Amino acid sequence: MSDTEFKKIHESDALARHQVNPYGPNPADYLSNVDNFQLIDSTLREGEQFANAFFTTEKKIEIAKALDDFGVDYIELTSPVASEQSRKDCEAICKLGLKAKILTHIRCHMDDARVAVETGVDGVDVVIGTSKFLRQYSHGKDMNYIAKSAIEVIEFVKSKGIEIRFSSEDSFRSDLVDLLNIYKTVSKIGVNRVGIADTVGCANPRQVYELVRTLKSVVNCDIECHFHNDTGCAIANAYTALEAGARLIDTCVLGIGERNGIVPIGGLMARMIVAAPDYVKSKYKLHKIRDLELLVADAVQVNIPFNNPITGFCAFTHKAGIHAKAILANPSTYEILNPHDFGLKRYIHFANRLTGWNAIKSRVDQLNLNLTDPQIKEVTSKIKKMGDIRPLNIDDVDSIIKEFHAEINTPALVPKKTKADEEPLDITAEPATKKAKKE
Amino acid sequence: MSDTEFKKIHESDALARHQVNPYGPNPADYLSNVDNFQLIDSTLREGEQFANAFFTTEKKIEIAKALDDFGVDYIELTSPVASEQSRKDCEAICKLGLKAKILTHIRCHMDDARVAVETGVDGVDVVIGTSKFLRQYSHGKDMNYIAKSAIEVIEFVKSKGIEIRFSSEDSFRSDLVDLLNIYKTVSKIGVNRVGIADTVGCANPRQVYELVRTLKSVVNCDIECHFHNDTGCAIANAYTALEAGARLIDTCVLGIGERNGIVPIGGLMARMIVAAPDYVKSKYKLHKIRDLELLVADAVQVNIPFNNPITGFCAFTHKAGIHAKAILANPSTYEILNPHDFGLKRYIHFANRLTGWNAIKSRVDQLNLNLTDPQIKEVTSKIKKMGDIRPLNIDDVDSIIKEFHAEINTPALVPKKTKADEEPLDITAEPATKKAKKE
Repeated sequence: MSDTEFKKIHESDALARHQVNPYGPNPADYLSNVDNFQLIDSTLREGEQFANAFFTTEKKIEIAKALDDFGVDYIELTSPVASEQSRKDCEAICKLGLKAKILTHIRCHMDDARVAVETGVDGVDVVIGTSKFLRQYSHGKDMNYIAKSAIEVIEFVKSKGIEIRFSSEDSFRSDLVDLLNIYKTVSKIGVNRVGIADTVGCANPRQVYELVRTLKSVVNCDIECHFHNDTGCAIANAYTALEAGARLIDTCVLGIGERNGIVPIGGLMARMIVAAPDYVKSKYKLHKIRDLELLVADAVQVNIPFNNPITGFCAFTHKAGIHAKAILANPSTYEILNPHDFGLKRYIHFANRLTGWNAIKSRVDQLNLNLTDPQIKEVTSKIKKMGDIRPLNIDDVDSIIKEFHAEINTPALVPKKTKADEEPLDITAEPATKKAKKE
Repeated sequence: MSDTEFKKIHESDALARHQVNPYGPNPADYLSNVDNFQLIDSTLREGEQFANAFFTTEKKIEIAKALDDFGVDYIELTSPVASEQSRKDCEAICKLGLKAKILTHIRCHMDDARVAVETGVDGVDVVIGTSKFLRQYSHGKDMNYIAKSAIEVIEFVKSKGIEIRFSSEDSFRSDLVDLLNIYKTVSKIGVNRVGIADTVGCANPRQVYELVRTLKSVVNCDIECHFHNDTGCAIANAYTALEAGARLIDTCVLGIGERNGIVPIGGLMARMIVAAPDYVKSKYKLHKIRDLELLVADAVQVNIPFNNPITGFCAFTHKAGIHAKAILANPSTYEILNPHDFGLKRYIHFANRLTGWNAIKSRVDQLNLNLTDPQIKEVTSKIKKMGDIRPLNIDDVDSIIKEFHAEINTPALVPKKTKADEEPLDITAEPATKKAKKE
């Protein structure tokens, strides 16, 4: 095959691929809800189970409003039976008149359900442990008892005209047949959603895909998923669940929750914008992620993790020489996320020993200095040598560049002037002073 | 079906499942290397591209020794052509005589290869961009040129008797046929490994599974994978790659690297110990993860993220009442990771409004006090009320319990003594004093 033929094939190929998003779901996969998902934010329920969380009523209201403004579809609150104040807070948030629907999360028990339906919520999320661990060590009930309680609670909540979700707990360690039996039962009596919960954070993406796809064939309602992050797979599991036909994902701001938490809303947005950019950008106010995270981080007294998706301090920082070169030519070469979508900026870290001459050339242009490519390569080599000795900051690099620029220009002047034996014009004065100050 | 029959079926089912690890790979999947993987730690290469990283020679040696002690199979170092000191450091680490094999990572170019083979490394990792982005904006070469350079470099490195890996860059945005063509070529000329790199962090688990499985059918050598974490899927992608037959995963301590980094070694261990506990425990010194992370966090001046797998401050903290109850009966109910495997401890957070009476009962026992279950429920209610008003610490809860215990016992004494009209024995003195101090 000639180079021309090779090129032709590739161009038509590239054209064909332009019509779809290659990082999105497989378009042949009719199950996928990757571009049709909803968020149930649980910062005020699961998040309250985070070790450091103590939310006052005012803080809960502030967080609920911020979540609503961001665009989450549902806000889930701590059970009103957890404490007297929890009940009052639930009622107060229901009265805010938010666009997001308000849910509360209760045990599968009539005592809890009776209190929940009186708070003014739009829906009730019911949960019961179905794994043999939970049946043995938590509530001690068998599957028949679980089914009976579930039906009673569901019919009661439905009779009040509000939404009802039934979820198992620790679903990935529950018996598959037990699970499908109970989900089929509750689907028949008309729940709005069934929930799958990876309560201990043990699930992996292919397990998630299989379970959700199987469940999808058994129930007629939406599927909601709740993934803990103990083994670092929560975001990937959520994405794969949507591919398999789940519709709703539980999130928390910064992922706060029991132990090290669940799917973080920011990280999930990073994942979803790659797969379904139009849907995500039209539905959620992505430029509010940073403020939302800062609000919650401050409330629970943690720092934004250095490696947080999107808002980590270096999420859009490029350092290695070959990366910087390509990023300068086209940011898409080394960026799948565009910082501008989140109201943020990219940064090219050129002040270090791994830097390359393309990054330095860009800096020389920013400084409005004129150097040829061979000259830029020479000064880059000086910068790399200095970067071997100690950490550099931007001022250090700028000084080296300016000094080099001055030296380049000085020799051209010096020979002319030496003839006259005069004091040469000190055009290096400014950088030299700067350098002296540093040393 | 009667309850007895139901129970019988379940017991035999539980027995059958005891013989396999239900969270591990599908045993029918002959491709899987989940219990036969190797780690290439790149903290001293990819990690050096982290915005904050500046490693002195001494620090590099300290990190290399710690990685070796932990048990990584390979240690990858920055290219010796990056800077003069990078070359010297590479030589110094090769001379340490570590058990781990030492690799260096270079561009697919003879100039780099000639320097690399002289450093004393056990192997060379070669990389070249194959996506249309990188071909257009980075090196500007076509696939024929790439293949030609690759063959030259590979044959040269092999002639020196050391290991050679060939990797594409940005593999998930490269043309599949181009990729398979070049991998097939380099496999035929005898590379030790081929590498897939998700350079921009766009890949999702099912894409990874498909690409690795396809590649596995084309090459005769091992497959290594390098996953960036921009969209939060690095750990899950690594796990899924192993399921599909990849053998080696690139990691960094705390995942440090370009932008927000790659697969973190600690997080991957959390994932892998669930799937292949015997392999992971026998091969890696898991109790050293915390020290390894602290060493690197200190060197690059970051904090361990609050939600870090395993070592995050709350990774083994349980808070909600229903969780605490079950954890006290059997930790496996809400824990997929055992903190003892990592030299760490679990903690039950009982001092808050979400607490339950089982958690308080456990605390009452720890305090060596005698209260009946109804009494414990009563004091739990008091604690929850106080927890509604303000954040509680352990001292607060202990004071409430001790005071309650004293009150319970006092009335029993008071009636007896009032008859004699004497001063009642002040058994509440100690808690009362404590309480006074607090107020």
